[in-house]
Amino acid sequence: MRDFTDKLRPSQPAGPEILSKERAQSDLSVEGLAHHLLHHNGFLERQSRILPIIQKEPLLDKSQQQNLSRPDLYKQALARAKLLRRLADKHGWNHADYKMAEYLVDDVSPYMLHMEMFSTTIREQASDAQRAYWMPQIEKWQIIGAYAQTELGHGSNVRGLELEARWDHQTKQFILHSPTLTASKWWNGTLGRTANHAIVVAQLLLPRPGASSAGKEAEYTSYGPHPFIVQVRDMKSHQPLDGIVIGDIGPKYGYATMDNGYMLFDHFRIPHSALLSRYSGVDPKTGQYIKPEKAVVVYGSLTAVRANIVQHARLVLARAVTVAVRYTAIRRQFRDRDGDGSGPELAVLDYPTVQIRILPLLATTFALHYTGLAMQRIYEGTRREIEANNFNSLAHMHSMSSGLKSLCTTLVADGIETCRRALGGHGFGGGSGLIQLNNDYLSKPTVEGDNWMISQQTASYIIKKMTTAVASPNSRYNDELDGQFKEYIRQKQQGKQKYGLDILSNDQDIVRSFQLRATALAYDAYQERVVNKKSWNSLLIQLYRLSRAQSQSILVTKFFQALTTDASLPPSTKEIMWDLFRLFALSTMEADRYEFLSTGVVNREQLDKLPARVRDLMTQIRPHAVKLVDSWMIPDYLLDSALGRYDGRVYEDLFNRAHRLNPLNKLTFNPNYWENEVIMGTPDLRLVTAKL
Amino acid sequence: MRDFTDKLRPSQPAGPEILSKERAQSDLSVEGLAHHLLHHNGFLERQSRILPIIQKEPLLDKSQQQNLSRPDLYKQALARAKLLRRLADKHGWNHADYKMAEYLVDDVSPYMLHMEMFSTTIREQASDAQRAYWMPQIEKWQIIGAYAQTELGHGSNVRGLELEARWDHQTKQFILHSPTLTASKWWNGTLGRTANHAIVVAQLLLPRPGASSAGKEAEYTSYGPHPFIVQVRDMKSHQPLDGIVIGDIGPKYGYATMDNGYMLFDHFRIPHSALLSRYSGVDPKTGQYIKPEKAVVVYGSLTAVRANIVQHARLVLARAVTVAVRYTAIRRQFRDRDGDGSGPELAVLDYPTVQIRILPLLATTFALHYTGLAMQRIYEGTRREIEANNFNSLAHMHSMSSGLKSLCTTLVADGIETCRRALGGHGFGGGSGLIQLNNDYLSKPTVEGDNWMISQQTASYIIKKMTTAVASPNSRYNDELDGQFKEYIRQKQQGKQKYGLDILSNDQDIVRSFQLRATALAYDAYQERVVNKKSWNSLLIQLYRLSRAQSQSILVTKFFQALTTDASLPPSTKEIMWDLFRLFALSTMEADRYEFLSTGVVNREQLDKLPARVRDLMTQIRPHAVKLVDSWMIPDYLLDSALGRYDGRVYEDLFNRAHRLNPLNKLTFNPNYWENEVIMGTPDLRLVTAKL
Repeated sequence: MRDFTDKLRPSQPAGPEILSKERAQSDLSVEGLAHHLLHHNGFLERQSRILPIIQKEPLLDKSQQQNLSRPDLYKQALARAKLLRRLADKHGWNHADYKMAEYLVDDVSPYMLHMEMFSTTIREQASDAQRAYWMPQIEKWQIIGAYAQTELGHGSNVRGLELEARWDHQTKQFILHSPTLTASKWWNGTLGRTANHAIVVAQLLLPRPGASSAGKEAEYTSYGPHPFIVQVRDMKSHQPLDGIVIGDIGPKYGYATMDNGYMLFDHFRIPHSALLSRYSGVDPKTGQYIKPEKAVVVYGSLTAVRANIVQHARLVLARAVTVAVRYTAIRRQFRDRDGDGSGPELAVLDYPTVQIRILPLLATTFALHYTGLAMQRIYEGTRREIEANNFNSLAHMHSMSSGLKSLCTTLVADGIETCRRALGGHGFGGGSGLIQLNNDYLSKPTVEGDNWMISQQTASYIIKKMTTAVASPNSRYNDELDGQFKEYIRQKQQGKQKYGLDILSNDQDIVRSFQLRATALAYDAYQERVVNKKSWNSLLIQLYRLSRAQSQSILVTKFFQALTTDASLPPSTKEIMWDLFRLFALSTMEADRYEFLSTGVVNREQLDKLPARVRDLMTQIRPHAVKLVDSWMIPDYLLDSALGRYDGRVYEDLFNRAHRLNPLNKLTFNPNYWENEVIMGTPDLRLVTAKL
Repeated sequence: MRDFTDKLRPSQPAGPEILSKERAQSDLSVEGLAHHLLHHNGFLERQSRILPIIQKEPLLDKSQQQNLSRPDLYKQALARAKLLRRLADKHGWNHADYKMAEYLVDDVSPYMLHMEMFSTTIREQASDAQRAYWMPQIEKWQIIGAYAQTELGHGSNVRGLELEARWDHQTKQFILHSPTLTASKWWNGTLGRTANHAIVVAQLLLPRPGASSAGKEAEYTSYGPHPFIVQVRDMKSHQPLDGIVIGDIGPKYGYATMDNGYMLFDHFRIPHSALLSRYSGVDPKTGQYIKPEKAVVVYGSLTAVRANIVQHARLVLARAVTVAVRYTAIRRQFRDRDGDGSGPELAVLDYPTVQIRILPLLATTFALHYTGLAMQRIYEGTRREIEANNFNSLAHMHSMSSGLKSLCTTLVADGIETCRRALGGHGFGGGSGLIQLNNDYLSKPTVEGDNWMISQQTASYIIKKMTTAVASPNSRYNDELDGQFKEYIRQKQQGKQKYGLDILSNDQDIVRSFQLRATALAYDAYQERVVNKKSWNSLLIQLYRLSRAQSQSILVTKFFQALTTDASLPPSTKEIMWDLFRLFALSTMEADRYEFLSTGVVNREQLDKLPARVRDLMTQIRPHAVKLVDSWMIPDYLLDSALGRYDGRVYEDLFNRAHRLNPLNKLTFNPNYWENEVIMGTPDLRLVTAKL
């Protein structure tokens, strides 16, 4: 479409010039900070190696994504995911390379559960023989697997699952059966249209010893949920096997490209070998249950998923913040009210009401980063211990991963939306690059354990730790948390509870204040639950706040420790990072000022000064904002944002998307209501619904 | 699709039984409350009259909505909107009837701007002759109009608009011209594909008196933005006229059915009569500007839109809360942790961590209701005054509508998402009924004045009022706010600033506490701005909090006044409404406890008890929750929610949507990555992108 708009340019100063100035005004070392943040496991090298390969493929072009229907989005994603696997074969990519390609393409892959939970479960729960049989087929994608645990009526409470796996001793088979509609498997990714196999979690029912093999319901005993590997579709026709109903559950908030599925069984028989039997099993000779050595094993893979979510969070938020910072640095709005009316309009990012929304989130990306790294280290250590049959750290790991998953995904989900709203009107448009990001990420606060619900797991662990600490406050410390608790108890016993912390100028005191506040809340919860014997459910809100406080304390502590021990950052960059640490901690504190006051950790005088201190920190950080987001090195291809592009050509890009790429503009419509015709030349519209 | 799932039922107790029990356990009068809330202007009668007509139309069926692409959603919406107008003609609907039909169908109508801002602007800004010429064509939809003000580079700051309307004295025409890309009109609803006319807001440029008519840039004077009525498309071909480029801006977060447009002009000539000239104009003989009598007139229609948004808010939030309450009453999860393990799973709504998210929002729907009514009354009064050339109340009205628009749309946008997350996993699914609601409503925090930005308009007004009050605290009160301010100043002067309010058991004191806190913040802002002469921009965060506090005070006050003066509600229902008032006010206060403390309004002892008081109130309200949402009378057709349906058949509906209505399940896919084929029998997938 050539027309007079071709020669038009945006008003001046335009984006490129503005971003150049922004970059010139800061002495932050983008290269140094990017290396510091992203050298782990060769992330940056990998990104620059994979990106050009991906960008060359027409199928991986993103420009029409938002115009597709949900069925078309799934189809496209399946074709894309196949292409990625072919590229992997061609270029000899390892797993990390493939994950990088997926990350850049940014579809939730229809094969995701195959590559993650399905293969992880086989690896972790299958016997050696089962592993040897299944793993090669899985790795070659000769079979595609899903993970079917959640049911229509049952999510977090796994014990409540209704699907039955009843042992038939005569045939040595299990009979999978869905007794109700709510027993339908539900939400299971990759299952709806893609997979031909699945891990199916069902209640294991064994005949009572001595009962006749044709026993009735009453003669079976339930051993709780167990994982089975089951072929669910025909390998040629891809139709569900007889006795199985499967399908995709339909449209969702996000995850359009993922075929979350449902599945029901009608007395469907599977062989004895289907039960994954690394830790438990059924003796085929006697029909007797073989118990696992440790009950705790099961939360291994859940913890892995949660640790992963925590790690992943930083780059998700960094995307939103990158868009927000670059665009609000470019966007101009209103002249200075106190000026003479002749000055230029001000950059939106210079308004404190915009800064207060974006800059604390910029600081949060770094807080998430250091905690993610720490989490990964702890996870790997715990994993090694488990492989050596040592389960000592698992409870701590589980508690930490639950609380952090809850807090971090809430911060990021809310953070994306806060960034989006800070963009003003254009944040609502498709050029923001934040719509799919937001829609997909909104699954995270509920998936893998609802954020409010799992805070109980953290709180429960903390109360146990506090109970131990109260019982023997003078004994040796078992770990950091134990130390904090015992010190708190001893000071309490000695009546020393005036802390005199200086959070306005002492970084160590900031860390202390977060630890002390979490400890004080832990002690209160211990009092209510253990001493006053309050019912668990009546304490839930308090326990949520406890888990949150503890997790905030971890974020602040890890940020502090990372800066304290780092020796790689150039000094001027390091100083900016310290300001970001302060901004993260103090803006977090400001939001909960009353709690810091009522736990007696920080005094009124200091807390009253907090808003001014936060504003000062924002003023310090403001000149470096563009370079700080640059350091996250998020490629334009991934951002897919007119507002957030590196070169600042915001308005050209927005106009191009509308004027040249929008398919709706290729149709001419008829606005006359007395005529049925909707598109010029097309008599009626019922076709739209009829075609489905 | 007949199969073994046909005979399956959900596990027991199922939704219908549970909701019956919920309804039986409360003595609330649904009929009484519904009448109390919704009898105004015949709302309930209208709803029950229009609904059956709408529901009969196959084109208005919603079951495939979420499977359509954005272009198809627009097409369908246009066909539907035409149908509604034909139904209106057929059934003799008045404007309110038509609006009811739109509300129930729940598409953002492609004709929306024609029916609202376009015709309102003609009605309010056109001269009598212009009105007479245009209004009949508008009412018959012979022409379809849009409202084109916002530009690609210019939103809130209307003075910054770039589009020029230059007076050519020789031809007595205006020349519309877009000098840059950022001057492109942008976001203008109804313009992208539907409209053939538009109100176009452009900078009016007149030759300097004495300058030659062929004058250069320097010889023109700008008179600021003015509205013109312009034909933009050919009435036959519906193509843009020569010299105009128009299109739809493309996909957005929500508003898929609305064709928000862009438009540029290349020296496009329009006649003198295009300038809407009720208040100002250009003398065609002299080329001189005719000034408006009052500069304030322009915010009339903006205020109307904001007042409308405030009024509308309650029913939007009520939808989300209806879904949340019904579903969480039905959904069971976990047995009581303190029980013996044999009891049934508990209703999710019985967990305090679920109550704290949903029940304060339930209370908020009523708070929004009473303030919306008050707003409407004040708006109508002010409107009558303006028609009589009295502009005295306009500043107050403008300030109030700005602050309330900001607070109420934030409460509702955040509230919908809070409800959605409280639904757990199924909240992410298409059966929640909250996805489109959320996506559409997310426009509200930025549209018609960004929520952070417009808080300045409220704050500025309040500071002026406070300045007057400080100057003469003993003079007669001009209005309620003036009274509060002057009393505060007098008490301050007399050193009486211990309030001794009892917010835990005195409802009047709750109201007082909100008013006093807002007044104290107003005084602080006055101090900083007027006395300490701080720069306006440095105070923006504080001004935002001031506007918020003042608007919260209005919500609390209006709620209290409405209950105090109402004589229609049955006593037991009234008592529940009082608890809802308390819950709204005290949970709002709890979120800002530090501010109530630091302004000296409420003491530590009372504030410390707030969480327990809020929990008690939730326990009081819990048994009535289902009947309370029933009272909003939101029909299932509008809710379009498996989770929120009146009869509680949640799981049957979810299963039906997936198993019978999901078009993706009609296709069989090929998961083998070494084959290009994606759909069985279809060789390649590039078709998906190629077709666009």
